[in-house]
Amino acid sequence: MKQEIVEEIKGIVGKDGYSTDIADLYVYGFDASIHHKTPDIVVRPTTTEQVSAIVTLANRTLTPIVPRGAGTAMCGHAVPLKGGIVLDLTAMNKITEMRVEDLYCVAEPGVIYDQLNGELSKRGFWFPTTPGSAEACTIGGMVATNASGMRAIKYGATRDYVLGLEVVLPTGEIIHTGTRTLKNSSGYQLDRLMVGSEGTLGVITSVTLRFAVKPEASAMTIAAFNSLVDAGRCVSNIIAKPLLPSAIELMDSVTIKAVNKCMNVGLPDCEAICMIEVDGHPAAVEDEMKIVEEIARKSGAFSTEASADKKKINEWTQARKAILPSLSRYGENYVSVALADDMSVPISKIPEAVGAFQRIAEENGVIVGTYGHAADGNLHTKMLVEPHSEESWKAGERAVGQIYDKVLELGGTVTGEHGVAITKAPYMQKERADSLDAMKAIKKALDPNGIMNPGKIFDWEGSIISHLRYPAFCDDRCGGCQKS
Amino acid sequence: MKQEIVEEIKGIVGKDGYSTDIADLYVYGFDASIHHKTPDIVVRPTTTEQVSAIVTLANRTLTPIVPRGAGTAMCGHAVPLKGGIVLDLTAMNKITEMRVEDLYCVAEPGVIYDQLNGELSKRGFWFPTTPGSAEACTIGGMVATNASGMRAIKYGATRDYVLGLEVVLPTGEIIHTGTRTLKNSSGYQLDRLMVGSEGTLGVITSVTLRFAVKPEASAMTIAAFNSLVDAGRCVSNIIAKPLLPSAIELMDSVTIKAVNKCMNVGLPDCEAICMIEVDGHPAAVEDEMKIVEEIARKSGAFSTEASADKKKINEWTQARKAILPSLSRYGENYVSVALADDMSVPISKIPEAVGAFQRIAEENGVIVGTYGHAADGNLHTKMLVEPHSEESWKAGERAVGQIYDKVLELGGTVTGEHGVAITKAPYMQKERADSLDAMKAIKKALDPNGIMNPGKIFDWEGSIISHLRYPAFCDDRCGGCQKS
Repeated sequence: MKQEIVEEIKGIVGKDGYSTDIADLYVYGFDASIHHKTPDIVVRPTTTEQVSAIVTLANRTLTPIVPRGAGTAMCGHAVPLKGGIVLDLTAMNKITEMRVEDLYCVAEPGVIYDQLNGELSKRGFWFPTTPGSAEACTIGGMVATNASGMRAIKYGATRDYVLGLEVVLPTGEIIHTGTRTLKNSSGYQLDRLMVGSEGTLGVITSVTLRFAVKPEASAMTIAAFNSLVDAGRCVSNIIAKPLLPSAIELMDSVTIKAVNKCMNVGLPDCEAICMIEVDGHPAAVEDEMKIVEEIARKSGAFSTEASADKKKINEWTQARKAILPSLSRYGENYVSVALADDMSVPISKIPEAVGAFQRIAEENGVIVGTYGHAADGNLHTKMLVEPHSEESWKAGERAVGQIYDKVLELGGTVTGEHGVAITKAPYMQKERADSLDAMKAIKKALDPNGIMNPGKIFDWEGSIISHLRYPAFCDDRCGGCQKS
Repeated sequence: MKQEIVEEIKGIVGKDGYSTDIADLYVYGFDASIHHKTPDIVVRPTTTEQVSAIVTLANRTLTPIVPRGAGTAMCGHAVPLKGGIVLDLTAMNKITEMRVEDLYCVAEPGVIYDQLNGELSKRGFWFPTTPGSAEACTIGGMVATNASGMRAIKYGATRDYVLGLEVVLPTGEIIHTGTRTLKNSSGYQLDRLMVGSEGTLGVITSVTLRFAVKPEASAMTIAAFNSLVDAGRCVSNIIAKPLLPSAIELMDSVTIKAVNKCMNVGLPDCEAICMIEVDGHPAAVEDEMKIVEEIARKSGAFSTEASADKKKINEWTQARKAILPSLSRYGENYVSVALADDMSVPISKIPEAVGAFQRIAEENGVIVGTYGHAADGNLHTKMLVEPHSEESWKAGERAVGQIYDKVLELGGTVTGEHGVAITKAPYMQKERADSLDAMKAIKKALDPNGIMNPGKIFDWEGSIISHLRYPAFCDDRCGGCQKS
């Protein structure tokens, strides 16, 4: 990066607002994905005006720029593939309005999900999307990826809560989309276009969010099955009843074993379990718990355990949250990596999907832990990879391709809540083949110089196992990666 | 229109699929707005392929084309301002998939809201947005305008239910956006961009919608007030409790008088009433009814009447639905017209907004009936105009401008659920001043020849009281209208 650009950046954010220290740059080359690439500079703006000045500079000098929240993205969203600027937005972390009587609040992009919910909770409200990274992820990142989590079945995804945004466009202009009202039909819904645009259409500098009334009561039922397919069937039987749970989490035998090994919760050691949560008025919760138990039994559960005890529910929820780290301890030589990890299928297709994933894993000689927010058809198939073995990565990549082909055949999507970035790009390009040109036309219209988070989504080419964070192996067909 | 274009259209849709009959063309020049303009041809396609062929032809020959559902739009969406083709989509009216176990269905754009809800209702589900024109409006039109209605406070607007779309782009290409899954983060959320784009970005030929579980029970409370401002305060007190009603309808004294004159429901003759609906589990409904009554009393209601009786609720709901026609019979020389008719303000600003609307009406010597979906801050100020008096129209237009200025000052939007088209265009351009260029850039990227529903939203110039359907008066500063 030219020294005059660094100097200009220093002029905008001051000497404490940026870093070109090699250790900082190395760290900011990671997110929670398998990828890595070192940026040229990290900038930490504190105001929208600073963001606008930095983006204007980037646009003028054709410098790539990548907005970054907490770096919890699983697919390489925050990895600066083409170098340039990483724009760390975590210093913009204030809740600037809290209007419970109007059902909305306004937050800067660096506000953390749990921080916001802490404030809402005091007032009887919540932002219920519940991402897995709730303790760390930022509201800006959630908007950029249309993040959600286990409660999307009842409460929707981030897109359903965004009322308005302040965005710095790739040309540096500041725009305001949406409103502070609960609905609007006033021109193109640009806020909804920005949701899920993964930092390629601008930098989100303020988010107006509606929120929901916190349910009075909740309860959880653990149903244990001798067949993963039966567990999948239980999910769609509950929905079709009709009964709308606040969450159903599915775990397969690999996942259960991994969690039981690491946590002391004693999940039933079986082929699959469903954790079914219902919430609402206490009387509704009581009625629905009974119905859930009955449906689970009829769907083949050999045991069910229900509880409305907060401590017990928390224990089970913690077990669910521990899946990801637990899987990494499954075998000595393995790490659990984010490959093929958040496809979504129509709910009734879960049994067929999970059955196929098991077969594909076996055929490719890879270990897969399947779990996920089954109530809305969102599955996670975390792959266990030997990070230093080229063969292991290649087998994983083969399995990923087959898994996604099956998902698309079943009418599903390759990503329900994590986004595309790098790791899902080739598969998303298959899924969205007929609308890629429209996406590219919009990108070109708003970012004519292609400076915002370049090289990803529709612009990605090559294998997903390149630009790897694991030094011992990288398929560098597309060049780049930390070795280069 | 050149005869060879007509011949080509005949080749695509057959001789029964179009009309150039002068009576047909005259009729298709209207929607539910104050505007009128006669098209050159009306085309009624029955398949996506036909739509694609017609749009391709329009794009090649630079012929304006306006998609049309039931024509219930209040702001001139379906009025073919620049002549050309009106594309009547009501013959594409099949529900093509009904997947209750997957919580989604797929409908052609001409499916009517009540028709869809009839099918869902049999299975225990509903699409709860509840537009005022439920009996007539089409799903395609609802998507195009991000329509909603009295239940948006609890259940959201159309945008919150669209999972995916099939769209014929302005170039004739057919694309598929979104998914058949309840959530997705797979590339730009083009479906959400298409929602509310008012036929300017393409023709919607299929809609994938999620739906909700129908509540077991509901109840309604009528609270009567001696002050419109107190009634407004009651609304935000309920929300801040926190208590999420399924609807709160507000009616001012003009509206109450008009309805009591036309319907035999005996609404309390007072300054304002709130109709508060709660729904859900029977126990929740019972609890919430009590809380609602208590809050209404504390907010100044001099009487409350509550009922869980379906017949009674239906009677009250019918009274609410009768407002629009009733207002037209308010005075002998007046018609109620869609001017300034669906602004939305933050809920807590309702008292200030309705007070200001009353003052503005008085100052301009116009009669305004204020009512609306107050729970989400969405107000309707139907103006009573003497249609043959230039002075009356001018006074109305002056009042509209002042009303919208107040709405924007309060942090509101000029349209909560109807859309922009013509009648809201100048005010929306004020509201969205800093993002108009971004909207235009997207429009240009997807519709380079500007054939889709031209001359509206950001492209509208001039006064809203032009192209009027009322022959005795038209401000034709911008040319056009049926007289030209």
